[in-house]
Amino acid sequence: MDIWQVRDTLVCTERISGLGHGHLRLLENAESGLQVATDPVGARPGDWVFTAKGTAGRHAHRDPAILTDLAICGIIDYWPQEDIQEDSGQGQP
Amino acid sequence: MDIWQVRDTLVCTERISGLGHGHLRLLENAESGLQVATDPVGARPGDWVFTAKGTAGRHAHRDPAILTDLAICGIIDYWPQEDIQEDSGQGQP
Amino acid sequence: MDIWQVRDTLVCTERISGLGHGHLRLLENAESGLQVATDPVGARPGDWVFTAKGTAGRHAHRDPAILTDLAICGIIDYWPQEDIQEDSGQGQP
Amino acid sequence: MDIWQVRDTLVCTERISGLGHGHLRLLENAESGLQVATDPVGARPGDWVFTAKGTAGRHAHRDPAILTDLAICGIIDYWPQEDIQEDSGQGQP
Amino acid sequence: MDIWQVRDTLVCTERISGLGHGHLRLLENAESGLQVATDPVGARPGDWVFTAKGTAGRHAHRDPAILTDLAICGIIDYWPQEDIQEDSGQGQP
Repeated sequence: MDIWQVRDTLVCTERISGLGHGHLRLLENAESGLQVATDPVGARPGDWVFTAKGTAGRHAHRDPAILTDLAICGIIDYWPQEDIQEDSGQGQP
Repeated sequence: MDIWQVRDTLVCTERISGLGHGHLRLLENAESGLQVATDPVGARPGDWVFTAKGTAGRHAHRDPAILTDLAICGIIDYWPQEDIQEDSGQGQP
Repeated sequence: MDIWQVRDTLVCTERISGLGHGHLRLLENAESGLQVATDPVGARPGDWVFTAKGTAGRHAHRDPAILTDLAICGIIDYWPQEDIQEDSGQGQP
Repeated sequence: MDIWQVRDTLVCTERISGLGHGHLRLLENAESGLQVATDPVGARPGDWVFTAKGTAGRHAHRDPAILTDLAICGIIDYWPQEDIQEDSGQGQP
Repeated sequence: MDIWQVRDTLVCTERISGLGHGHLRLLENAESGLQVATDPVGARPGDWVFTAKGTAGRHAHRDPAILTDLAICGIIDYWPQEDIQEDSGQGQP
């Protein structure tokens, strides 16, 4: 599941009916640039979120008939950094 | 859902029957180069659009039997720029 | 749907039975390098084609039981170049 | 199936109900950067793992209703390096 | 379908039950780095193979319940090089 920062809400009046009237968020990260996602969680600009792609994205909504290939699944609280155990005795591929 | 600019309509007489007679649009963005998409919305060259991939792309058409892996879902009106809340108190991954 | 140029027919005698006896084409483009695709259309080396990925690729064949994740959907006749309407009044994302 | 090193467990209290209460791992590799995965195996930070994407990711869990597009499938013990048979008599594509 | 060279067999004792006891191959190419694939064909280190992704990967096995998102579909015998018809009368996109 990809990690993104919410940049804004997307303004889009001409859209297919399958998208319903839910919010569309504009997401951004360094690897993939900009993407549009549906938002069943309620994220705000600046939040770091992770998303589900493909069929999993549709299942993220309480209405599984919604049309999306990317849905926000959760808002990340925080995560510790740089604490990978280097002494795990395994080589790098 | 990816973001693209419509470049043109694609001329393609020799195609499989599953595509029907709908319009095929040539899309372009910086990350992925050129792609071909089916268009149930009616976008014009120069429009900025977002698309649904995979099975979601097929559901975007009123005829779900249509064969596509990328369908235009909406035309983007505009979006505000550079207003991410930097003071959200969360670190960057 | 991705855009490719057909490079050649692939010679592959040891393959799983699900692929049947159809032709396998070797495709190439600048973004993704080389890929192997099934061909229900009958493209020749040098042709520019577009393809359907995933489940859509299987539906492109008249025999939906065929095993593929990439199928040629159409041969591109030509497309006009460099005619995006710059005066469409929309900003770039 | 992609190869990753487990970096940490992800702290995420605001998430959709489909994810259940299972652990979310933060994975990292050179090609794709950071990703979030569900973990039915029990990997620890520093482990090298491989993952299943898409629908296969959901089948990796004993509860197939779980919502994920990336699940850890196995922990890699080790692998020999640099032993590709260069004398196999086949050209490089 | 992606093209890879088989690098080795992957040693992985801690894995989910859905993978069965089949061989796991470590594949490598220039575009995508390293990947793990299931192998219903019987490829050896040094072989050039092509693979099916996603649901197509599962159908490649005689046991469709097997858990994989990448399966080897065939071993490439050889392919001619540099013979694209430059005189096909079509422009490059």
